[in-house]
Amino acid sequence: MDRVQTIIAAQRDRFLAEFCEFLAFRSMKGDAAGLAGAAEWTAARLRQIGAAVQMWATDGPPVVFAEIGQGATRLLSYSHYDVQPPDPLDLWESPPFEATVRDGKLFARGASDDKGDTLARIQAVEVYQQAYGDLPLRLKFFVEGEEEVGSPHLAPLAAQHADLLRADGVLWEGGGFDEAERYTFYCGLKGIAYLELRVRGASHDLHSSFAPMAPNPAWRLVQALNTLKDDRDNITVDGFMAHVRPPTTAELAYIRAIPFDGAAVKANWGIPAFVNAMSDEAALLRFLTQPTCTICGLRSGFIEEGEKTVLPSNALVKLDFRLVPDLTPGLVIKLLRGHLDRRGYSDIEIVPSAGMIGARSDVTAPVVQTAVAAARQVYGHEPVVYPSHGGSGPMYALVQALGSNGIMAGVCYPDVRMHSPNENIRMDDYFQHIEFLVEFMRRFAENN
Amino acid sequence: MDRVQTIIAAQRDRFLAEFCEFLAFRSMKGDAAGLAGAAEWTAARLRQIGAAVQMWATDGPPVVFAEIGQGATRLLSYSHYDVQPPDPLDLWESPPFEATVRDGKLFARGASDDKGDTLARIQAVEVYQQAYGDLPLRLKFFVEGEEEVGSPHLAPLAAQHADLLRADGVLWEGGGFDEAERYTFYCGLKGIAYLELRVRGASHDLHSSFAPMAPNPAWRLVQALNTLKDDRDNITVDGFMAHVRPPTTAELAYIRAIPFDGAAVKANWGIPAFVNAMSDEAALLRFLTQPTCTICGLRSGFIEEGEKTVLPSNALVKLDFRLVPDLTPGLVIKLLRGHLDRRGYSDIEIVPSAGMIGARSDVTAPVVQTAVAAARQVYGHEPVVYPSHGGSGPMYALVQALGSNGIMAGVCYPDVRMHSPNENIRMDDYFQHIEFLVEFMRRFAENN
Repeated sequence: MDRVQTIIAAQRDRFLAEFCEFLAFRSMKGDAAGLAGAAEWTAARLRQIGAAVQMWATDGPPVVFAEIGQGATRLLSYSHYDVQPPDPLDLWESPPFEATVRDGKLFARGASDDKGDTLARIQAVEVYQQAYGDLPLRLKFFVEGEEEVGSPHLAPLAAQHADLLRADGVLWEGGGFDEAERYTFYCGLKGIAYLELRVRGASHDLHSSFAPMAPNPAWRLVQALNTLKDDRDNITVDGFMAHVRPPTTAELAYIRAIPFDGAAVKANWGIPAFVNAMSDEAALLRFLTQPTCTICGLRSGFIEEGEKTVLPSNALVKLDFRLVPDLTPGLVIKLLRGHLDRRGYSDIEIVPSAGMIGARSDVTAPVVQTAVAAARQVYGHEPVVYPSHGGSGPMYALVQALGSNGIMAGVCYPDVRMHSPNENIRMDDYFQHIEFLVEFMRRFAENN
Repeated sequence: MDRVQTIIAAQRDRFLAEFCEFLAFRSMKGDAAGLAGAAEWTAARLRQIGAAVQMWATDGPPVVFAEIGQGATRLLSYSHYDVQPPDPLDLWESPPFEATVRDGKLFARGASDDKGDTLARIQAVEVYQQAYGDLPLRLKFFVEGEEEVGSPHLAPLAAQHADLLRADGVLWEGGGFDEAERYTFYCGLKGIAYLELRVRGASHDLHSSFAPMAPNPAWRLVQALNTLKDDRDNITVDGFMAHVRPPTTAELAYIRAIPFDGAAVKANWGIPAFVNAMSDEAALLRFLTQPTCTICGLRSGFIEEGEKTVLPSNALVKLDFRLVPDLTPGLVIKLLRGHLDRRGYSDIEIVPSAGMIGARSDVTAPVVQTAVAAARQVYGHEPVVYPSHGGSGPMYALVQALGSNGIMAGVCYPDVRMHSPNENIRMDDYFQHIEFLVEFMRRFAENN
């Protein structure tokens, strides 16, 4: 056992006790005391390791910002102290805010998402200090309390404190072991533009017998939607695909090395084939590198059981565009508006709601390559590197917007049950992740 | 005042009192006593005029069938004793089952739909008998109790009793004065095929980030629907329009004579223009003679307020086809199935529900021409003749299926509030309608 492992082993009980304290806060939307308690606890724990802490107030829960260490290299850590509500409560085998260890797993709301990542990084600094002395880089913590509600203050705070937050690399939340126990990193997250298209017809629903005379907004919506995609599932919004960068050679190499069991995915979803009967390789490449235009909801007229002979007065669709870099939410709205107008659909209203710019880091950047090397050493195998996650997150504002690169590295494994009852992590993963973080910081200070 | 008018005038109070008795029955779905009471009352009133009455049992409310009169000419009357529920009750100005006269109008549930038509025809026989003696034709009454629930037993009973029900003409329920106080007949009703198209994707809703890989049934439904209509609102189901007969010269002449205030209709609906910016004349012709394919409801995925990033596991549309003669519900399902299969949509399930064959009578038939002549005499103006109503009804089984022609002639006026609170008829209309019925029977026995 090396020095770092020995130190961690000696601290297991205390580190776990601290973790349980942190997990006891009901830091979820609507529980102001729980959120404030978790923020204060985070700040106090950061002060314990010697960090200079600031509380950045918002009209929601504050951001805990902290700095520690010296040196030329700047590393930013992003994580969050807020959690999802625990409902449905009756499906939990132990109370969600009373952390419980069973079979080597720690069960509690927030264990994986994201108090585990947050605390492991703080404890890793303490381990580093015991093992090697002062931290040889300037580590900045950005711990927010609004990730689960869409991070409404993240982008403005990032812009406001750009000089403080700018870094040579960013450790994002998330990541961990895959189904085959390979450690997995993600170097990006897709953006998103969520919007409604609304079509209006008559001022009120009409008897359907009037259909030969009265315009039907449901048909109009169907016809407009049909111009947005072709029958091969390609997005045909004018100018949209011109903004999609081809993957780089390095990204392609990493994607081709990702183990992907398409048959298992199809079986899980109960589908005979992927879209266009794609091969596993094509499906994975499309998943990780292509934008989407998805009907999330479609609604018009009478939608209950049975029959009602009605000609609807309005129709709406909820569309979610998952965005790759360069395709910003604002650009998507503009392209869509032009596309619809050019086809005579100027009456169709676009109502944007959530919007987030996509983030993709250079997979050859030091922060990524250092993490890969540290993982190879600590985990003893070649980690899996996803150039991008298929999902979305608010990475852009703290990473690409500040000229940096980032990587998701965390304490997850496939059965963490994030956002679900019985959320958990494996405690051995947690302590090994602290070891990884120590090694990562040591190397990043040297290599960057 | 002629003989018939004098007789009617002498009976006004008694006829009204009988009408109020009939209207007191709560003969609506779910009220077995109300339905049975109305059926018995109808049978008793028919016996009073000397009719031979049969009660045709169903597993719902019975059909009251009655025959009266002698002669070569057979006339069938179709009407119903059931009514719509009175909800919302708080909008009624007087209790719905306590008929009340205000300002010359009789307010009660069923006043216009359809106890007025039913009783006026019975009382007209009595007036005829007093004025002229025995009825010179064989009048058959078919008074059902399930019209408001889709007449589930009408077609089988019509087939079972075809010999008894076959007639030289049919008086259907409905019809009356239009906005300009012109008496109005309808010589047909459209058929209907109501169905759902259901599309399935994954076995459960997926996270929308999986859209590059997982099939989306909402998009598939949009694409399939888009093949059913073109952008000029023409139905493009393979072979569908080939079954639409062009209107006859006589039908066209009647349609062109129909007063139609398109501007008022558009203002009422709050639309700037009819479909394809049609002229009033084109809109009316299309309304009365063309089939429809209408999206009544569209549903997939997340349809509440806000955002949910979901990839739906299923999608459905409720379609209502209004059918002209020759386009039967069975034919529509068959054409639609073939159309979808030919385009690779064999996975899309067609789930038919309501179906009814359309009815259109020969506008030159004696029953129509006799009604026009009788109306001209009694109402003192040229009546308006609609070759077909734009709506649907179960006329076919009792009329065209038995080789007959029929006409809708009733006690309505534009403010009858059928199916709504404060349903009413004008009592002068009611007594004048009895006069019309007497004159119609007199002429029909002579002319047929």
